[in-house]
Amino acid sequence: MSPTSVNLKQEQERLEDLYQNIFPFLIQTERALQDVASRGKGMIPEIVNYVIQAGGKRLRPALVVLSAQLGGSQTDDAISVGAASELIHLATLMHDDIVDRAVLRHQKPTAAVEFGDEVAILLGDFLYVEAFSLLAAINDPQLVDLFARATRAMCQGEINQVRRRFTLDLSLSEYLSFIDNKTATLMGAAMKGGARLARLSTDQATALGHFGWNLGMAFQIIDDTLDLVGDEVVTGKTLRTDLANGKLTLPLIWLRDKLEPAEREKFLGYLREPTADSVQHIITWVKDSGAIKEGLRQAANFAQQAKTSLHSFPDSSPKKTLSAIAQYIVTRTR
Amino acid sequence: MSPTSVNLKQEQERLEDLYQNIFPFLIQTERALQDVASRGKGMIPEIVNYVIQAGGKRLRPALVVLSAQLGGSQTDDAISVGAASELIHLATLMHDDIVDRAVLRHQKPTAAVEFGDEVAILLGDFLYVEAFSLLAAINDPQLVDLFARATRAMCQGEINQVRRRFTLDLSLSEYLSFIDNKTATLMGAAMKGGARLARLSTDQATALGHFGWNLGMAFQIIDDTLDLVGDEVVTGKTLRTDLANGKLTLPLIWLRDKLEPAEREKFLGYLREPTADSVQHIITWVKDSGAIKEGLRQAANFAQQAKTSLHSFPDSSPKKTLSAIAQYIVTRTR
Repeated sequence: MSPTSVNLKQEQERLEDLYQNIFPFLIQTERALQDVASRGKGMIPEIVNYVIQAGGKRLRPALVVLSAQLGGSQTDDAISVGAASELIHLATLMHDDIVDRAVLRHQKPTAAVEFGDEVAILLGDFLYVEAFSLLAAINDPQLVDLFARATRAMCQGEINQVRRRFTLDLSLSEYLSFIDNKTATLMGAAMKGGARLARLSTDQATALGHFGWNLGMAFQIIDDTLDLVGDEVVTGKTLRTDLANGKLTLPLIWLRDKLEPAEREKFLGYLREPTADSVQHIITWVKDSGAIKEGLRQAANFAQQAKTSLHSFPDSSPKKTLSAIAQYIVTRTR
Repeated sequence: MSPTSVNLKQEQERLEDLYQNIFPFLIQTERALQDVASRGKGMIPEIVNYVIQAGGKRLRPALVVLSAQLGGSQTDDAISVGAASELIHLATLMHDDIVDRAVLRHQKPTAAVEFGDEVAILLGDFLYVEAFSLLAAINDPQLVDLFARATRAMCQGEINQVRRRFTLDLSLSEYLSFIDNKTATLMGAAMKGGARLARLSTDQATALGHFGWNLGMAFQIIDDTLDLVGDEVVTGKTLRTDLANGKLTLPLIWLRDKLEPAEREKFLGYLREPTADSVQHIITWVKDSGAIKEGLRQAANFAQQAKTSLHSFPDSSPKKTLSAIAQYIVTRTR
């Protein structure tokens, strides 16, 4: 076995350990996702199954059920909300992969590569509709509103990031606002959704929302760091897309702001024209400068904040799992 | 004034006449659409306003309110449902224009051309979310379900049509199934949505749904016919995209099935490789053969079916307007 396939296996096992107590729930969520595929007509079932069966961490459904369990709820609605949050996530991935010109996702060609951009656009739309159908069937307009706000934020975050491509003076706070919208808000909504199903108090729901939000911030900073220095075999997706698309992420912003004017000009020159050569220069620079460590450090801070948000809850199995997920997020390699 | 600008003005006046009695409602719908734009952050308001202010016939909101009025309802919810149906329509147009590589819509560059494919993809997503938010706020899961089904059908119809591009033996029934999903189902949902707001009986709601569905079939056949022989200045959008994208529509299918084998081979050759020259040959052939007349005839049949669906309703101002819209649809030039 090569070192990367060992890593891949270890990662899978770590995630399975984490999910041990919610396994029956996750199986039901998979069934709900497969139901979505089978409700489609024509080519739809095949294409939806391709996307669902590609895998993924199912992190958002896990957050929904753990949050609901933390509030003592065992309602079946958690399956719908979990499946809906995963469908929203899958829909944004399909559209983002077109936007970022990525070719690989979960060790397989992206849907856009496999079926064409047109089909990937329309299938993403289909998944959004399915997600909001599942949510609406629960008959709680505030639940729909929660996920509508999160999805709206995701679209806005992504549009604003696209419009600021190759903006080399992008500030750290702009970057943080992008990832807040793109990732953290949906994870916050997944936790708040679970809290709502468990009829937790506003304070408790807010605390759980903070957990999800901070987890999402940590998650995206790690994702962006892996995009720079990760292994495509382990992550199973196209990397270095941020550089190719002129998207400045935390390690790049941190390094830029640390450089002397002359060095900075050289660095910005590489960013401005991302060829294979300049990308290699940037990656070496980023690694040697401590920028990756800084990314990991800031991600760990957010993960710590996430754990702190759980303080007011008594010890329990779901609380322990949530803390372990926060730990996993910042040490994952894919 | 050139003949085309006279036509354009006449068309606008015809539509204004039709909408005379629902003008206050349509103004409120425009405000609801502008609210969607102003709720956005960053670049969103500018881009949403570009799309909204481009205009359009606002046919779906008109159907919602006329259907509700036919049932004696004056509820404000019709504004939300009308705006939602228009947002779904606008979102599909944005995504379809990317899929079809169209450059012009409502006399202006398409959103994809103006802001880039990436932004157009994400903005379409944003509009879908806004639409389902508006619907969910009414707190009637069946209403959400009605529009979710229609939107799902639209995505499926479009995907299946994309996957059958350059399928030169496409049957008439396959074509009719595409336009059923793409267009007729949403117009049916608009009418059924209005009926639901007015708490009409199942039979009455079904009759109004049939009106919308048949109107949609007529509308799309005319749209596809105008794509072949229309005037880009009058329609204000890129034409001949169906031929360029290998999409067989009613006049083409009708003509193909009427031709002798040798002639048919020649015709299919033109369709197989749509150059400027072959497109010109096809259009002349289609015009001379009576295929356009056949398209208009079949559209008129559906429009007649639509009117027949209103039989059981007593005469009233909204009924008169709906009949006039069915008439307008099949005689429009844009």
